[in-house]
Amino acid sequence: MNCSSQEVRRILEQHDRIVLTAHVSPDGDAIGSLLAMQEWLEGLGKEVVVAVDDDIDDKFFFLPLAEQIRRPDQVQTDASWLTVVLDATGMDRIGAADALAKGKVLNIDHHISNLHFADWEYVRTDCAATGEILTELLADWQAEFSPSMANALYMAIATDCGFFKFSNTTGHTLRMAALLVEAGAQPNVVSEHLEARSLAKLQALSEVLRHIELFGEGQVACLSFTPELLQYTGEHTGSYIDYIRTIQGVDVAFTVKYVGPEETRVSLRSKRADVNAVASVFGGGGHVRAAGCTVAAPLEEAKKMIVKELLKVK
Amino acid sequence: MNCSSQEVRRILEQHDRIVLTAHVSPDGDAIGSLLAMQEWLEGLGKEVVVAVDDDIDDKFFFLPLAEQIRRPDQVQTDASWLTVVLDATGMDRIGAADALAKGKVLNIDHHISNLHFADWEYVRTDCAATGEILTELLADWQAEFSPSMANALYMAIATDCGFFKFSNTTGHTLRMAALLVEAGAQPNVVSEHLEARSLAKLQALSEVLRHIELFGEGQVACLSFTPELLQYTGEHTGSYIDYIRTIQGVDVAFTVKYVGPEETRVSLRSKRADVNAVASVFGGGGHVRAAGCTVAAPLEEAKKMIVKELLKVK
Repeated sequence: MNCSSQEVRRILEQHDRIVLTAHVSPDGDAIGSLLAMQEWLEGLGKEVVVAVDDDIDDKFFFLPLAEQIRRPDQVQTDASWLTVVLDATGMDRIGAADALAKGKVLNIDHHISNLHFADWEYVRTDCAATGEILTELLADWQAEFSPSMANALYMAIATDCGFFKFSNTTGHTLRMAALLVEAGAQPNVVSEHLEARSLAKLQALSEVLRHIELFGEGQVACLSFTPELLQYTGEHTGSYIDYIRTIQGVDVAFTVKYVGPEETRVSLRSKRADVNAVASVFGGGGHVRAAGCTVAAPLEEAKKMIVKELLKVK
Repeated sequence: MNCSSQEVRRILEQHDRIVLTAHVSPDGDAIGSLLAMQEWLEGLGKEVVVAVDDDIDDKFFFLPLAEQIRRPDQVQTDASWLTVVLDATGMDRIGAADALAKGKVLNIDHHISNLHFADWEYVRTDCAATGEILTELLADWQAEFSPSMANALYMAIATDCGFFKFSNTTGHTLRMAALLVEAGAQPNVVSEHLEARSLAKLQALSEVLRHIELFGEGQVACLSFTPELLQYTGEHTGSYIDYIRTIQGVDVAFTVKYVGPEETRVSLRSKRADVNAVASVFGGGGHVRAAGCTVAAPLEEAKKMIVKELLKVK
């Protein structure tokens, strides 16, 4: 059942030992929400442990508490512990951290696909980020925001709305961010750390940008992550699509990535066209403007199949 | 003299014919401020002309009024016209538009270097953007924001604070942006148009990123715009420095650009070091974290001279 703000506060206050967790592949919203919550709860005198079943990107280590995040197998809990699941839609999203939830579970989340799985929940799909929800809750509880809490929550919000560029940015999103800057958040420090890239990553970007192909009179842009290109980029290729998505005149951007000789992973983004429909043809799916599928064909052939389908929906 | 908000309103209401202008090389803040002001004043029944002594980047043309901006020589004024100078510190910043100022001049600006030149002025150095000032003024006047005014002002604010990433982003900056989104501004539409790049620009970026050099154990990053590289990039190379400034471990980023066989233009950015001091050695200057100079030496030699000075201040 969906709690009120005051009910959430009461649940947290009634537990002395709390484990905080979030989804695997934790992003800025997950990490920022965890660390702000940890700091506030520790200030109340609670015993708090933050556990995430994944590596923590070192770009988050400018937040002092980030290095203390543990793996679930390093943590012991019992049924007296409250488990707070932040920014995750279900227990299947938190990996091995689900084993720590021996007692009651509170879920705070903003995803529309939330599975409503917890004993108590506070799900706000009108918010762009879990950090936006937490900022409102903490303000409602008249909590004091330290500068480090404010930085963590500013990162949380900014990450999930693309620094106030995405369509999920509302007046409320910006007002919560305003409150954080007034509490000591430093947008330049947060952005500096989020944007830091290694020289190797920039050199990989240079190589990737040499492989852009346009189709359909420039309305479709494609990047092919061949085994050769993957040697530069490594396996994490998800962010490159943004470079081709923003090319003037391009409506649909897609990437094809080598998985095996007869297996190609496809990601699609669009400004207008329904790419969910295209992904569905190949047994994939997603949203109208962001979808993906896996094609049982070699990379070059898969690319041609996708272009053909895309030109049908144009 | 610095007017009050209500005095600014009265000055605008007392004039029936108004020419709006802004600095040359108009950026998002200048253009967004001009177009929002134009729309509001036309709504009051004024005769309004917007004149800028420069080309208007076509990325601004998603704002309906942007294509109507004229060159000063296409405009006729007389002493009865009010000239409103937006986002400019002095008459020397508006190029040939100064010839249109035959009557009174009102200046609305946020730059600390403002020359206090106008008959009336409203200078707010606490604001990150002229668009932030105008949003506050229009809200104070209970003006109605149309969605296109809101988009123009959101662009104005977001441009000058790097989409809420720069240290000039305050709670007030974000609150004004919130008000605009609630009035119909579309952050995704604004950002999509500001970020649109041609394929040629991305290919130029790819080439530029192949030329990064690091010095001083990776704390200094450099890009050299040789005549060969300038064939890819064209003369507008100002934005590339952001890519090397954000490399992990880099404190100072600088670019050297070929001007002539014995003339090299240098731009410096830093996170901590005082680059103004380094630029001063060569007769240049600027701010602690952003400065520039021109060195009377060939590019390669100028680069070595700058590195040598930089390693002294490290």
